[in-house]
Amino acid sequence: QPHIDCITSQTLVKLPGLIDVHVHVREPGATHKEDWSTCTAAALAGGVTTIFAMPNTSPAVVDEASFNEAMKLAKAKARCDFALYVGASSTNASKIPALSSQAAGLKMYLNETFTTLRLDDMTVWMEHFQSWPKNVPLCCHSEQRTMAAVLWLAEVYSRPVHFCHVARKEEITLIRMAKERGLLVTCEVAPHHLFLSEDDLDKVGHDFGQVRPMLAKKSDQDALWENLNIIDCFATDHAPHTTEEKSCAKPCPGFPGLETMLPLLLTAVAEGKLTLEDIVLRLHTNPARIFGIPVSSENDTYIEVDMSASWVIPESPRFSKAKWTPFAGRKVVGSVSRVVLRGELAYIDGEVLAKNGFGRNIRTGEVRPCAPLAPAAYISPT
Amino acid sequence: QPHIDCITSQTLVKLPGLIDVHVHVREPGATHKEDWSTCTAAALAGGVTTIFAMPNTSPAVVDEASFNEAMKLAKAKARCDFALYVGASSTNASKIPALSSQAAGLKMYLNETFTTLRLDDMTVWMEHFQSWPKNVPLCCHSEQRTMAAVLWLAEVYSRPVHFCHVARKEEITLIRMAKERGLLVTCEVAPHHLFLSEDDLDKVGHDFGQVRPMLAKKSDQDALWENLNIIDCFATDHAPHTTEEKSCAKPCPGFPGLETMLPLLLTAVAEGKLTLEDIVLRLHTNPARIFGIPVSSENDTYIEVDMSASWVIPESPRFSKAKWTPFAGRKVVGSVSRVVLRGELAYIDGEVLAKNGFGRNIRTGEVRPCAPLAPAAYISPT
Ligand SMILES: [Zn+2]
Ligand SMILES: [Zn+2]
Ligand SMILES: [Zn+2]
Ligand SMILES: [Zn+2]
Ligand SMILES: [Zn+2]
Ligand SMILES: [Zn+2]
Ligand SMILES: [Zn+2]
Ligand SMILES: [Zn+2]
Repeated sequence: QPHIDCITSQTLVKLPGLIDVHVHVREPGATHKEDWSTCTAAALAGGVTTIFAMPNTSPAVVDEASFNEAMKLAKAKARCDFALYVGASSTNASKIPALSSQAAGLKMYLNETFTTLRLDDMTVWMEHFQSWPKNVPLCCHSEQRTMAAVLWLAEVYSRPVHFCHVARKEEITLIRMAKERGLLVTCEVAPHHLFLSEDDLDKVGHDFGQVRPMLAKKSDQDALWENLNIIDCFATDHAPHTTEEKSCAKPCPGFPGLETMLPLLLTAVAEGKLTLEDIVLRLHTNPARIFGIPVSSENDTYIEVDMSASWVIPESPRFSKAKWTPFAGRKVVGSVSRVVLRGELAYIDGEVLAKNGFGRNIRTGEVRPCAPLAPAAYISPT
Repeated sequence: QPHIDCITSQTLVKLPGLIDVHVHVREPGATHKEDWSTCTAAALAGGVTTIFAMPNTSPAVVDEASFNEAMKLAKAKARCDFALYVGASSTNASKIPALSSQAAGLKMYLNETFTTLRLDDMTVWMEHFQSWPKNVPLCCHSEQRTMAAVLWLAEVYSRPVHFCHVARKEEITLIRMAKERGLLVTCEVAPHHLFLSEDDLDKVGHDFGQVRPMLAKKSDQDALWENLNIIDCFATDHAPHTTEEKSCAKPCPGFPGLETMLPLLLTAVAEGKLTLEDIVLRLHTNPARIFGIPVSSENDTYIEVDMSASWVIPESPRFSKAKWTPFAGRKVVGSVSRVVLRGELAYIDGEVLAKNGFGRNIRTGEVRPCAPLAPAAYISPT
């Protein structure tokens, strides 16, 4: 049971439960990398109470059967709340809209990355842009010119689009232009693109450092910070692979991120580069609005962080099966003291208390996805 | 001297001189592939009286000095009329608008092809879209999603764009959508994409068959014919390389095309797939309108084709230094009997009479590029 009354230290801060809209749980199909139990334990340890799970599992979530199978696994093992994406394929555009009210959103893979779901033919993109309901998010992995191509489709089909893991100056510039034109576009940025650049590859390793989008130039990293008011969400793109899979000849792209995102952001707060409000806006308020999640439960779902804690990110964060992090050795301030989810103490001081199956699917029948607000509504005044 | 009075045979047809907006002359820098004299001889033999020369020479035409040097060579050796493109580079956006009234247009290379001018960073594209005058054509090599990205910039900057060598169903579909939205976009299609597909690669050779955009699927080829009313221009993309350069381990991409385009199109007329009006619209009327060329000289510039001539395209067409063609062995009907350029007989029955230096730069001080008309104006009623 949480004890809100005794929060008296000036260094303890209470924040709403964080919502991470971009997580690769790896189950079904690659539970040696991660599974629903370990992934959601890592989430809670990172202050995240809701994750949206990406569909590039094995089998991929691309139809009713695979969606139901993934849902069964999630319900049985999730320790925090969740929703599931559906993946766009070259053949499912007419069928998956039937799943839209149950799905976090539609995910479209439009560049080379760790998936079998990549779509090259724009006539297939067009089918999805036409058939996926406008009030449920359509999320794109689309880098550089691919993002501009998607923006044109957003314009042609007059529909909202959410852009995953914006990483480059080029991309944040495109998003700014689109918002200035009044397009209903939103975007997320991953911690590794905010806190790492290709200059860090020698330290991280050119094999472990593989991620999509790749770590970009220092000038790209700087551009993200300079355009903070254009960034609607932070999202981990938690993409665990084992150290063996990262150090081989053809390393799998992707970083774990759930256990390190919040400390990195809190450190930026301590350094005066961000405010706590910036974090809440991009990891709670905006994700809830863009994805149409009800926010009525904040009294019983929240996290407490100790801003006085100063620590070093270890080689192997505790809960994810990845057992490595690109941020190892980095000094951070701020740690998650406790996480309360729907009135229950789910995490306290290094220990996950929530059991497998405690997590709930937040896209139940009652929850109707709502339309994203006009872009300006997402832009923080900072 | 031409003898117009004696054209009495029913098989002789008089057409205006053709304008080919996409030709690689290869001079300066690669005169073993082609030079201004041989290229323009091949043009005249193909019924083409005006060529627009691409800037990917060596050195590339990217500033005043290289433009003037190319112009000097062209004026000294061209046998037919011409204009020169300027190439977009990552550093010349603010300087080349000064050349715009003298240039055929601006060429932007946005995909991998035979050039050193490829631009990857969209912020550079944006600079050119902003600074190049709207009344002078901006032409893009932009395939698939890159074309959609360009369409978004055309929309954002409200400017006309001409698309080079549209080759795929995906691309012609994008152009149709853009025209239906009222964007001021125009496009050209090359003969090899109309008359060849990847099904022909075994015959042409997978080395000799290299070209950018690559020969596409039969369904892409069919889509071009089905969307003929969306195609504003035909253009050869004449890109000569020697047989040695085509048969090596890393074959240079590109086909010669000046001597074979018109016979292929006339054969399509004979087969009922095109009309002569379709050809004139796309190789004279529309190029003149899109590129702002005065069309006052038609009484003294025209070609005569013999529609009764039936022949087989030889292994090595006569005038280009390429000495090969992907259309070798193809039976065609229709041959160029004579070409009259500005009142002078420039070509007759296999013989080029126009001398080096007879060709004129059509972008002189008096010739002002005009704005492209609304797209609908280019769409043939067929
Ligand atoms: Zn207490
Ligand atoms: Zn991705
Ligand atoms: Zn991802
Ligand atoms: Zn809230
Ligand atoms: Zn005569
Ligand atoms: Zn090209
Ligand atoms: Zn070309
Ligand atoms: Zn005319």
